[in-house]
Amino acid sequence: MQGTPRALVGEFARHGGRIDLARAAFPHIENWTDLSTGIAPWPYPVSLTAAAAEQLPDPGDLAKLEAAAAVSFGVDPKRVVAVPGSDLAMRLLGLMLGRRSFVFRAAIVRPGYSGHAAMWGAYKPAACAFDDIGLMAPAHDVLVLARPNNPDGLVADPLLLEWAALTVAKRGGHVIVDEAFADADPANSLAGSDWPGLIVLRSFGKFFGLAGLRLGFVVAQQEIGTELRALIGDWPISGPALATGLAAYSDAEWQIAQRARLATASQRLVELLTRHGIAIVGCTAFFTLVSVRHRDRLFVYLAQAGVLTRPFDYEPCWLRIGLPRDESDWARLDEALSGWRMT
Amino acid sequence: MQGTPRALVGEFARHGGRIDLARAAFPHIENWTDLSTGIAPWPYPVSLTAAAAEQLPDPGDLAKLEAAAAVSFGVDPKRVVAVPGSDLAMRLLGLMLGRRSFVFRAAIVRPGYSGHAAMWGAYKPAACAFDDIGLMAPAHDVLVLARPNNPDGLVADPLLLEWAALTVAKRGGHVIVDEAFADADPANSLAGSDWPGLIVLRSFGKFFGLAGLRLGFVVAQQEIGTELRALIGDWPISGPALATGLAAYSDAEWQIAQRARLATASQRLVELLTRHGIAIVGCTAFFTLVSVRHRDRLFVYLAQAGVLTRPFDYEPCWLRIGLPRDESDWARLDEALSGWRMT
Repeated sequence: MQGTPRALVGEFARHGGRIDLARAAFPHIENWTDLSTGIAPWPYPVSLTAAAAEQLPDPGDLAKLEAAAAVSFGVDPKRVVAVPGSDLAMRLLGLMLGRRSFVFRAAIVRPGYSGHAAMWGAYKPAACAFDDIGLMAPAHDVLVLARPNNPDGLVADPLLLEWAALTVAKRGGHVIVDEAFADADPANSLAGSDWPGLIVLRSFGKFFGLAGLRLGFVVAQQEIGTELRALIGDWPISGPALATGLAAYSDAEWQIAQRARLATASQRLVELLTRHGIAIVGCTAFFTLVSVRHRDRLFVYLAQAGVLTRPFDYEPCWLRIGLPRDESDWARLDEALSGWRMT
Repeated sequence: MQGTPRALVGEFARHGGRIDLARAAFPHIENWTDLSTGIAPWPYPVSLTAAAAEQLPDPGDLAKLEAAAAVSFGVDPKRVVAVPGSDLAMRLLGLMLGRRSFVFRAAIVRPGYSGHAAMWGAYKPAACAFDDIGLMAPAHDVLVLARPNNPDGLVADPLLLEWAALTVAKRGGHVIVDEAFADADPANSLAGSDWPGLIVLRSFGKFFGLAGLRLGFVVAQQEIGTELRALIGDWPISGPALATGLAAYSDAEWQIAQRARLATASQRLVELLTRHGIAIVGCTAFFTLVSVRHRDRLFVYLAQAGVLTRPFDYEPCWLRIGLPRDESDWARLDEALSGWRMT
């Protein structure tokens, strides 16, 4: 391991999932327990065929995928557009909405996902605290937030968001709600709301544990969908993602079982952290955010025990911890925290 | 089969590869010989793993893929950016370059690939004939063409394009050369040219026969690459495409064998068509463009024999014919054309 804890943490504070950096910084660890992402650690069983890679994706299959996703989201399929990853969709939406007017005012709710700032490219969006959504909406063209929020798990009030969407829509603006972690509790999703100005983003990879396939969805009014479809072209989704997404969204039984796994594991994680005297800031079914005084030292301590977590550069006490996959991961985290408590 | 040959052909004139439409229009055909695309019919052998679908794509693997592709293209790896399909990359480049100036003048060389018009969204680009490139370059910010061209196989003069690139670059503009079909003859590629203003697009799926993976590359000056990377984010390429692309571009022996297969089959196709008295407009190693008086009737005749080809709405005599995969496909095409000659 090179450098101070502070310098080392910086590299890991951009995104989770940087096992490549972890291997370089802690070469003595052979097998990592990766708790640095919010991706469910029990993937949907994939059967990838060579045919899916060879043929041009079939437009009929794309429509079937969007219909199956719409059923899972509980929304009208005409409002659903499949995109090659919700992260890329954000940037496309940013370009698409930004080109509509010469003076464009975007606000992003902070703290939040780093991609929400990247949507606006070189143009710097205003930062908005959760408590200021009501204040900021009337003065901006687009407001972006995640619900539940990443990393602190806050769930914005639907009535406030409905008012904000109606307010910005009067000027042709939008409220963009990133529901990357909404699949664990579909009844609480806003995707089915038909407020003018509302755009909802959904992610495939987090709930189904298949982040490598790059698949997401934009749920919005049809004119946004039409413009987005024209932008992403005739083959936006790879064959392997099309085939797997269609199978996964059509498998209601597996989704129910996955929700149960997420609920059980997230509750167990909160209990384990509490038992170790670690203060919890918030959580979703996919991760827990904790606050510890010597965060950088804890991050390095856990990494040296083979447990990768997710620090944040803008909050020096915050550490996000994802769900352990199996009993050996639970034991590793438990033992590492026991050792830390004794330092 | 429903409707007149004319009405039926229209549906197939947007893109090749519409086996879904063919099945609906000609339900009696069980197995199609699909000659409607320019995709090589001998795919690189794929071994897709579940791990590639599960994990977030590794940024280190993305760099390795770009380096391997750069070796295959014969260019500096710093100039290569992987993108999720060259079709999507075109639209992103259009947005990226279009937002630079308030008044933006794009010209596309016609006839050409339909995606070149889609790059500019609602803004209508000027059409430019091949012979007018020298005339159009001084009056436009971006000039787009394919080399070799799709569908007529024309190969634009490199000296003319160098002059055009330097001319538009003086105003900060670009010449975009779509080299989707350049891999069959890498010595003739412009990707290694470092003219200011030149942007070259490369496609993975056509040469390697893996169009379902959605992988392409932009080869350009580093400032274009930096802006594009910021736009497409940290995980632009799916795990299956990353793993397969890295293996395929590293396999020099297979690429040499594929070039030999393409050369042999394209020559055989020209000979077969000539033998049947069909006039050839032009060709690449991936397809041949023919001109026939009763094009719509020939398209339907071939389809009824299970051979799908590619008509064009803007040229009523043109039909593009891709490469047969194996001897049974060659025999089917040969027999169908023999029957047509006797009608």
